[in-house]
Amino acid sequence: MHEKIARLIELDRAHTLVAHIGAILGWDQETYMPSKAIEERAEQLAFLEGLAHQKAVNPEIGELLTALESAEGLSDDERAYIRVVRRDYDRETKLPESFVTEYAKAASIAQSTWAEAKQNDDFNAFQPHLATMVELNRRRAAYLNPDLPAYDVLLDLFEPGSTQKSIASVFSTMRRYLVDILGEIRKRPQIDDICEGRRVDADTQARISEYFMGVLHYERDRGRLDISAHPFTTTLGGNDVRITTRYLEDYFPTSLFSTIHESGHALYEMGIDPNPAFRATKLSEAICMSIHESQSRLWENIVGRSRAFWERNFTALSALLGKAGQGIDLENFFKSVNRVRPSLIRTEADEVTYGLHVIARFELESALFDGSLKVENMPTAWREKYKELLGIEPPNDRQGCLQDVHWSMGAFGYFPSYALGNLYGAQFWATLKREVPDIESRIAGGDTLSVLNWLRANIHTHGSRYTPSELVEKVTGEPLDARYFERYLREKYAKIYGF
Amino acid sequence: MHEKIARLIELDRAHTLVAHIGAILGWDQETYMPSKAIEERAEQLAFLEGLAHQKAVNPEIGELLTALESAEGLSDDERAYIRVVRRDYDRETKLPESFVTEYAKAASIAQSTWAEAKQNDDFNAFQPHLATMVELNRRRAAYLNPDLPAYDVLLDLFEPGSTQKSIASVFSTMRRYLVDILGEIRKRPQIDDICEGRRVDADTQARISEYFMGVLHYERDRGRLDISAHPFTTTLGGNDVRITTRYLEDYFPTSLFSTIHESGHALYEMGIDPNPAFRATKLSEAICMSIHESQSRLWENIVGRSRAFWERNFTALSALLGKAGQGIDLENFFKSVNRVRPSLIRTEADEVTYGLHVIARFELESALFDGSLKVENMPTAWREKYKELLGIEPPNDRQGCLQDVHWSMGAFGYFPSYALGNLYGAQFWATLKREVPDIESRIAGGDTLSVLNWLRANIHTHGSRYTPSELVEKVTGEPLDARYFERYLREKYAKIYGF
Repeated sequence: MHEKIARLIELDRAHTLVAHIGAILGWDQETYMPSKAIEERAEQLAFLEGLAHQKAVNPEIGELLTALESAEGLSDDERAYIRVVRRDYDRETKLPESFVTEYAKAASIAQSTWAEAKQNDDFNAFQPHLATMVELNRRRAAYLNPDLPAYDVLLDLFEPGSTQKSIASVFSTMRRYLVDILGEIRKRPQIDDICEGRRVDADTQARISEYFMGVLHYERDRGRLDISAHPFTTTLGGNDVRITTRYLEDYFPTSLFSTIHESGHALYEMGIDPNPAFRATKLSEAICMSIHESQSRLWENIVGRSRAFWERNFTALSALLGKAGQGIDLENFFKSVNRVRPSLIRTEADEVTYGLHVIARFELESALFDGSLKVENMPTAWREKYKELLGIEPPNDRQGCLQDVHWSMGAFGYFPSYALGNLYGAQFWATLKREVPDIESRIAGGDTLSVLNWLRANIHTHGSRYTPSELVEKVTGEPLDARYFERYLREKYAKIYGF
Repeated sequence: MHEKIARLIELDRAHTLVAHIGAILGWDQETYMPSKAIEERAEQLAFLEGLAHQKAVNPEIGELLTALESAEGLSDDERAYIRVVRRDYDRETKLPESFVTEYAKAASIAQSTWAEAKQNDDFNAFQPHLATMVELNRRRAAYLNPDLPAYDVLLDLFEPGSTQKSIASVFSTMRRYLVDILGEIRKRPQIDDICEGRRVDADTQARISEYFMGVLHYERDRGRLDISAHPFTTTLGGNDVRITTRYLEDYFPTSLFSTIHESGHALYEMGIDPNPAFRATKLSEAICMSIHESQSRLWENIVGRSRAFWERNFTALSALLGKAGQGIDLENFFKSVNRVRPSLIRTEADEVTYGLHVIARFELESALFDGSLKVENMPTAWREKYKELLGIEPPNDRQGCLQDVHWSMGAFGYFPSYALGNLYGAQFWATLKREVPDIESRIAGGDTLSVLNWLRANIHTHGSRYTPSELVEKVTGEPLDARYFERYLREKYAKIYGF
């Protein structure tokens, strides 16, 4: 059996290597590539995708898996490894080649049509492509598992083990308290944003970003920071995890918190090492999107927007801002970056309303796939949903149902991960606080390493050793419970808004 | 036959695509890659090299070539294409796999040993590896063509059609006049270098580089400038030709002229387009290193260090330098960047002495391969050769026979290309001046596009359509003649030094 595992690892590593090469090309495309190279780059990436697919569907993997799945005497890590390889192998092999090609073409056209439609605020132009992507995802789900409802199959791709019902149940609890907390906040006087309209040049913001990467113990010899239109984290190798940010010269908190957010993703990737024998294999990959978001949002919000963090770091920020920081003090800065206000754009939402943006999308996707919502009625349904959940309505589809790229890529079932990330993050944080009771004063004293070490030992290092539900049980002693996030929000915002 | 050509192009393009992906990884390694990623990057590059090799030795290529070589009614471009594909196919297939692996390993160890040996000025440490690389290159030459002397086979790899004898003959002419011109210069008062010791920060130098890339019509949407330890040009795709430079804060001309030099390489690559049907194939690649160097050195030296060029551009440079440029005027700047002085390091040599550095290496390589020079005697032979050619002796091997990376990589036969580049460049320039008699006043008036357009139409566009000797005949009406470079040097330096 040892030989079979070794061979499986060898085949898996060949796939990982190709994926990393693709990541290098993707990173370059978003950061430094000259504009006219775009068509060639698309060809290069398509070639690598094809190569990765070939390596992923190698029938030898299937044979090894079958032999190993019935084997005795395997270690826990070996069994976990076989589970994740099986999951990906089935996903890659169950889709016919012709379908994969058809899907890739349709998604590519849908994406470029969406970009233009968003620009022109023209839902009608996008509508037939949205319909195609929904239809293709129904077929995709049927190939993967014809016995389950399509949306359940899609959700499981991003959050292994989840269903429409299980997420709806968690979200119904979350919705209740988010609406309630938002109601409390709306009764109180609103906070002014002291950061708004201050011009901070890109160089200064870059120095601020670099400083906070240092504060978080981001490893410079294993990654770097660059600029891209949309911030992201990408893994180009076990020792090459890069992040990007963008600098809005009239609103510096955007780059500051996006750098902390992406650093959170990167720290997770940098910390994965379940077992040296499984380096550069699927066991050494992040479990899923929601756990990834739990890490980025924990650093960005729970740590990065905490009072303790700014007690320590405000002086340094102030010094870096120089004249542009005049009139900002610890108190008004802390309040400004925690201001809660219903808004139309998910990516700009605060901690309280963010979940409502996700619930809106989850409910609309559910309705699309259970047939109760027709694609052509999406703009109306979107407006109604925002009115219902956030009390505001987008004046156009650009700020409404055309705002996100996800549907044009066919990534239905992805959005819940963002909100689940908040829930996991709060539950992990509650455990961390129980196990390291003085964590806040440690952070206030400049010790963020205590946070990182705890996350690394309890979450990062495991890679894909556990499923998300196994992990949360193992780390926190109980299943995912949305009330941890509620407690966190109430405690924090009661102080800030005084309720 | 048309189908066979089409299939050959298809196979060739698959190879080109993999080579470009490798170039992206190589570029990233030299510019932005975090330090700890080096081992993974080496694996990724080795994988791509293996893949490129697989594609290059595909027996179908051999079958197509055999069929096409005896075909009738092919166009000139098709025949030229078949010639270059055959040349590369033979090179790739004649070397046994086991030899390629052995060579790659030995070269990798030799390179890292060389880097350390250079650092420590320890030739003894490098000596056995130099011996190995010589021996491996004897075997390599024997695989490629057992009927020719090894050094002839190696020279042909870099300069198709050349032999030890043909190059020795050209170099003997060149040597005579270089020594003579140097003698004339040494009789005159030496020029002071007005640029030395001025602190110009990297940001200012970057602006200077960007400015001169603009002056040369480097296409920004098809490339970019970055920083690396050693400047280079690399082709990541037909529309992605990037250059690098480095900024020495106490000597700004280094980055200025290296940017012009690399831009010259890039303009060549950007201008290749012999035939749209052959894009992204071997016909759309540069012919060889010496023609490449003719372009970079023509821009750097013949144009970039000319009086006419600075008549136009000195004011802009002066403005960019600001205070750091105080005391520099057109006259002393022009003279400073054309100062001639025998020195120990090839890469820092002026236009006159550069060729002598190359002749030294060529003669030492010739002796190594004809057996008259033993590897262990290299340091002594090097010192004697420098004494003989340049009148100075290196105080150590670091500044002597350990200065260049080439031998550690096994690139014997490469050095002559550098000097041949000067010769080709001067001969092309003489033709250009004959065909565009007012070229210097055009340059002085800011019209560098006339130079670029001439080079593009006569040299760049052809790609590998001709051999180097065919090209020089076609463009200049005669074979390579070292006396054009002599005339160029005498005319230029007689004015500068007054002889």
